Amino acid sequence: RDPLVLAGHTFSSRLIAGTGGAPSPQVLEEALRASGTELTTVAMRRVSPETRGSVWDVLQRNGIRPLPNTAGCFTAADALRTARLSREALGTDWVKLEVVADERTLLPDPAELLEAAERLVDDGFTVLPYTNDDPVLARRLEQLGCAAVMPLGAPIGSGMGIRNPHNIELIVEQAGVPVIVDAGIGTASEAALAMELGCDAVLLASAITRAHDPALMAAAMRDAIRAGRGAYQAGRIPVRRYAQASSPAPD
Amino acid sequence: RDPLVLAGHTFSSRLIAGTGGAPSPQVLEEALRASGTELTTVAMRRVSPETRGSVWDVLQRNGIRPLPNTAGCFTAADALRTARLSREALGTDWVKLEVVADERTLLPDPAELLEAAERLVDDGFTVLPYTNDDPVLARRLEQLGCAAVMPLGAPIGSGMGIRNPHNIELIVEQAGVPVIVDAGIGTASEAALAMELGCDAVLLASAITRAHDPALMAAAMRDAIRAGRGAYQAGRIPVRRYAQASSPAPD
Amino acid sequence: RDPLVLAGHTFSSRLIAGTGGAPSPQVLEEALRASGTELTTVAMRRVSPETRGSVWDVLQRNGIRPLPNTAGCFTAADALRTARLSREALGTDWVKLEVVADERTLLPDPAELLEAAERLVDDGFTVLPYTNDDPVLARRLEQLGCAAVMPLGAPIGSGMGIRNPHNIELIVEQAGVPVIVDAGIGTASEAALAMELGCDAVLLASAITRAHDPALMAAAMRDAIRAGRGAYQAGRIPVRRYAQASSPAPD
Amino acid sequence: RDPLVLAGHTFSSRLIAGTGGAPSPQVLEEALRASGTELTTVAMRRVSPETRGSVWDVLQRNGIRPLPNTAGCFTAADALRTARLSREALGTDWVKLEVVADERTLLPDPAELLEAAERLVDDGFTVLPYTNDDPVLARRLEQLGCAAVMPLGAPIGSGMGIRNPHNIELIVEQAGVPVIVDAGIGTASEAALAMELGCDAVLLASAITRAHDPALMAAAMRDAIRAGRGAYQAGRIPVRRYAQASSPAPD
Repeated sequence: RDPLVLAGHTFSSRLIAGTGGAPSPQVLEEALRASGTELTTVAMRRVSPETRGSVWDVLQRNGIRPLPNTAGCFTAADALRTARLSREALGTDWVKLEVVADERTLLPDPAELLEAAERLVDDGFTVLPYTNDDPVLARRLEQLGCAAVMPLGAPIGSGMGIRNPHNIELIVEQAGVPVIVDAGIGTASEAALAMELGCDAVLLASAITRAHDPALMAAAMRDAIRAGRGAYQAGRIPVRRYAQASSPAPD
Repeated sequence: RDPLVLAGHTFSSRLIAGTGGAPSPQVLEEALRASGTELTTVAMRRVSPETRGSVWDVLQRNGIRPLPNTAGCFTAADALRTARLSREALGTDWVKLEVVADERTLLPDPAELLEAAERLVDDGFTVLPYTNDDPVLARRLEQLGCAAVMPLGAPIGSGMGIRNPHNIELIVEQAGVPVIVDAGIGTASEAALAMELGCDAVLLASAITRAHDPALMAAAMRDAIRAGRGAYQAGRIPVRRYAQASSPAPD
Repeated sequence: RDPLVLAGHTFSSRLIAGTGGAPSPQVLEEALRASGTELTTVAMRRVSPETRGSVWDVLQRNGIRPLPNTAGCFTAADALRTARLSREALGTDWVKLEVVADERTLLPDPAELLEAAERLVDDGFTVLPYTNDDPVLARRLEQLGCAAVMPLGAPIGSGMGIRNPHNIELIVEQAGVPVIVDAGIGTASEAALAMELGCDAVLLASAITRAHDPALMAAAMRDAIRAGRGAYQAGRIPVRRYAQASSPAPD
Repeated sequence: RDPLVLAGHTFSSRLIAGTGGAPSPQVLEEALRASGTELTTVAMRRVSPETRGSVWDVLQRNGIRPLPNTAGCFTAADALRTARLSREALGTDWVKLEVVADERTLLPDPAELLEAAERLVDDGFTVLPYTNDDPVLARRLEQLGCAAVMPLGAPIGSGMGIRNPHNIELIVEQAGVPVIVDAGIGTASEAALAMELGCDAVLLASAITRAHDPALMAAAMRDAIRAGRGAYQAGRIPVRRYAQASSPAPD
């Protein structure tokens, strides 16, 4: 019950994992299992074919759907080329679209991103774009036919959490496709917060793979995402300025 | 594995529940079950004997240890009297000590609290004091022989979360007894944060009982506390000002 | 000393004012005087010619340079048309460029904004663009030849302050033109913070004109901007986790 | 107009300065002048008589009232002794009361503080107590006859700003004596915020004396406190979730 529906596919886990940063394929496999993920990104440009190969094996063995990404692409043309190669290599037309502006911030380039999204959608891809937290850009990406919008919480790998929760809320309010917080999450409470803001899923790479104990952090993230989703659905108490006794005063 | 040890007793759940605020005994029972709690407070003064009776039945049926509290006490003398009555009535020498200064903020009164703690410890009680987030007061309470310290995150029932995480960290750093965040938590991410700060447990009443769906929120809180504990033990990534790619750049 | 240099012009005040929202021309005039502003925006589309007329009179009487804006424009074409009309009407080629995506958020539309900026620069305008807080978009606007970048702190009129100080810092770090926080500031401490983050100026409309006492708030903002600038230049103490006595301990 | 009235004395400046941490008496003097302060603390225990001597000279030369403090006292008895010595030495019965619990946090000891305050008031002192941000403790200190309450924003010298603005607001709401934020302020925007929360004054030592340019920071703090006070009195705009155009939409 309460599955994530993404481009017509149903997932019982709302945690999308990344594979970069793991100290070894063994540790990666343990962490992915502990996370319960059913959809996991694979970098097509940033890693060597052998690394990709071993990552695919891990995903296949564990029944996890691979989501190729275009990490390392700086232009729409780069991203298009990478997406086509990955479609051929992996036999999937799903792509996590990343088009970043520079190595230092790895922030998305809005203009190149919009162009890439449009061309990939035209070319039949199921496009899941990594975007900044701008509600206007998110809406445009949806209008272009993207299957989800994936705003950042903070720069990739920064572990800063969700810097601007208000923007994430604005994106959620207006979105007709799933909203997935991608990048910036560093710890469990931040993943829970993403879900409490109304997001549909969370994408996590470094926060798990670079933790001191990746498998333990993966399990924590799985629990946190479930917790945040539950709290969102359960309807939290309002925030009050003054105290309210949990029990009534005696007569 | 990883149990909470409190005054020599072992609990596998790190969620301590409160019973006030539930719309009915049925809803309360469902929520307590969903929360997985093994230790739950009962107000000795604020509720009528009949209400207390039905609450005790619920706890007993579900194998939950009752923790009588002194909610509604404004002086050390009041608290002492209430604690003794509850020891007699419930046959437990555990007491959650609350001595508040006024109805509007329900904030603890430091002077009365210290006096009550000292007298209750002398009288053989196992004292779990509700305190503000002052590291000095927390240390004093431990020195007086309290079995835990229970700093607030924010005023009771306010749902403001943890207003001053730095103080909670200072309390955790110096404490030789369990630290339990008591009061202020409104939603799952905040309970996870309490555990990530190094706390040993979280006490929750209104956040569960007054949620729109108490049982669903109770399950969310159970997951969140486990998530926060796991993340604390897993060793999170550091916060960085700039991005770090999860995968290395290709050559 | 320490003037703001904007497109070759020198201003001793770092407060740029807006004129919308004032209850009367008299109150506006008092507030503008109290603010010490030397550059003030005038809406070309949103207000009637008569209102604009009385605003121009106020500016002229007080030696304040008018900065026409394109508030109310939703496309690059709209903005271009409005800017040309204002150039003709006011005899200035300076323009505060606003191209927003919708009435509810009044957030800038990145694609239309880039197009409008490019065309206005080509057409000889001195372009001061209102943008979101995206460092990549800010850099693009500078590369297109804009004379400043004007990121929002929060949505126009929201009074939420600076939602994402980290983004403002990233924009400041990379900028070769003045950075001016535009929109979102609600009170004096937030204006001071903008300057402490390294911004060159602050643009304020509603925060002054809709305050209970606009002239008093204008003076407060003037002081706050000077204070924030001074603190930025004075080099603040670092943040420490633990205390440090201001005086050494006695032997 | 709008003076600070403290124990029947009137001050036109709302900045109370500290003297510890200055690199030299010359720099201290410049900074105190730039700050506009009319009341400045002098440590009676932490500094040698010669240092105190030169500080007194500076204060006297500049018409600044000295406020001896009991920094370095860990018990009520210590504080009482120090206050009496300072009364004899300086001929003032004003005392800033500090009774801290440990060197690492320099946090006030609530029990010793209350005792010291009571005894000093009984002994005819005008007592200005440094306290934590607990509204209950602040009220007690006022009830004992203190002439002001001086809650911390954060630990002394930490530069963390105001960690719990809600507590400061609760203290202000209930206080019948001036509320002065003492300790924790690191930069101008935080001093402005203290005033916007409704405080009557701010006490600053390290933030000024240990800044890279103390005199420039002192002037910034002077401006910030005036700005925050003005903004508080001017009545700020409310915070809104959505945008509001500063000008009405055209017909």
